[in-house]
Amino acid sequence: MSTLILLRHGQSLWNQQNLFTGWVDVDLSPEGEKEATQAGKLLSQAELLADVVHTSVLTRAIRTAELALYTCGRSWIDVRRSWRLNERHYGALQGLDKSETRKRHGDDQLQAWRRGYDTPPPPIESGSLWDVSGDPRYASVPPSDLPTHESLKDVAARMAPYWLDALEPDLRAHNVVLVAAHGNSLRALVKQLESISDDEIAGVEIATGVPRVYELNDDLSAASMSELGDAAAIAAARAAVAAQAHR
Amino acid sequence: MSTLILLRHGQSLWNQQNLFTGWVDVDLSPEGEKEATQAGKLLSQAELLADVVHTSVLTRAIRTAELALYTCGRSWIDVRRSWRLNERHYGALQGLDKSETRKRHGDDQLQAWRRGYDTPPPPIESGSLWDVSGDPRYASVPPSDLPTHESLKDVAARMAPYWLDALEPDLRAHNVVLVAAHGNSLRALVKQLESISDDEIAGVEIATGVPRVYELNDDLSAASMSELGDAAAIAAARAAVAAQAHR
Repeated sequence: MSTLILLRHGQSLWNQQNLFTGWVDVDLSPEGEKEATQAGKLLSQAELLADVVHTSVLTRAIRTAELALYTCGRSWIDVRRSWRLNERHYGALQGLDKSETRKRHGDDQLQAWRRGYDTPPPPIESGSLWDVSGDPRYASVPPSDLPTHESLKDVAARMAPYWLDALEPDLRAHNVVLVAAHGNSLRALVKQLESISDDEIAGVEIATGVPRVYELNDDLSAASMSELGDAAAIAAARAAVAAQAHR
Repeated sequence: MSTLILLRHGQSLWNQQNLFTGWVDVDLSPEGEKEATQAGKLLSQAELLADVVHTSVLTRAIRTAELALYTCGRSWIDVRRSWRLNERHYGALQGLDKSETRKRHGDDQLQAWRRGYDTPPPPIESGSLWDVSGDPRYASVPPSDLPTHESLKDVAARMAPYWLDALEPDLRAHNVVLVAAHGNSLRALVKQLESISDDEIAGVEIATGVPRVYELNDDLSAASMSELGDAAAIAAARAAVAAQAHR
């Protein structure tokens, strides 16, 4: 039986400033660094020592993994990265102030973008300020695979090959696999693991900096799920991210 | 033509305390963290942006890579690690005070251990305090491959398969390859790249935190070597490590 640990990165500089982030490579805030270190302490206390770590190609998830693994003395494990673990691409909303966007587009539209499983925001304009498609980290990705905006359903679709090609083999080869990623890429994994419906998944809040631990059956379905740490702290972390319009 | 960058980790906590380190997993000191960050600035200024990084499985080299790559905005590149990039195994000397060892064994013996290409220190006693052979990071290494003490020649021998199997393919596939490692594992690479004799290699001091950049020919022989940064700063870094009995 293998163990899969999901870890959502903590506060970033744009979370602080209430901006839509998506694929923009915004760093952790000092508070986000603390959350990552605390996650490492929880992993250490639970003796959940990862054999391999998977991250997105965004700095806030990578540094969350680095800080957590450093804290629990596992900096030396194998590392894999993929754009398929990236946050949901927020299209034309990236870089916009969330309150401003709410004023301009109205509550209903914002809610639809936020909670609709199959409702992407408008696509980002090619060459605009926060269009990251030319970033060298995506140089080896076929342009037709690179999103310009995504619904949560789109995220689940681009995650599916990564589960099959990268996560499954590691879960079969290793005892403990850590995935450090983002609210919506982790939602896509949680949806699959917990068989959550399209309607319900957007309402599932994954607490930042709280390791979410799945014990897996031989067929890699989830036998159990638990969150590490103090229940009150987990509830507070979940409430804090739920209060934000988007990550 | 591809580029190979060698980066030796900066000061560790045991360098500070004048202890033999070898395979003991000692962390960077705050000064060593600064050296790593400074290396990242130099790489950024030179626009030498690595596509892939190789590290040992020792925390001080891993964190040097993490801090340098974070500083130059390349945290997202692919990561490979191997025990074959570890520091020389200092056998029974690991954990001992260098001045004490000099007093006990004499200058000539210490010099032989330090400068003899083919002179290993005594083997570490199995199960003794600083025997790391049971560490989980070596669980997948055949016990017969794990050293109990090493000469620089032994380091070069265990590095050879890594050059062929891991570094060569990456140098052929990528523009810029970064290796973050240790004084003696990097000496083994420098010896090969610069065709330095057995007698001379121990006298080559690789400055800590100073990226050592090789432009390679198509056959992966070195066309040129340069060190990044201010010449006086490089000389000072080299003198500082040369003044230590061992790393």
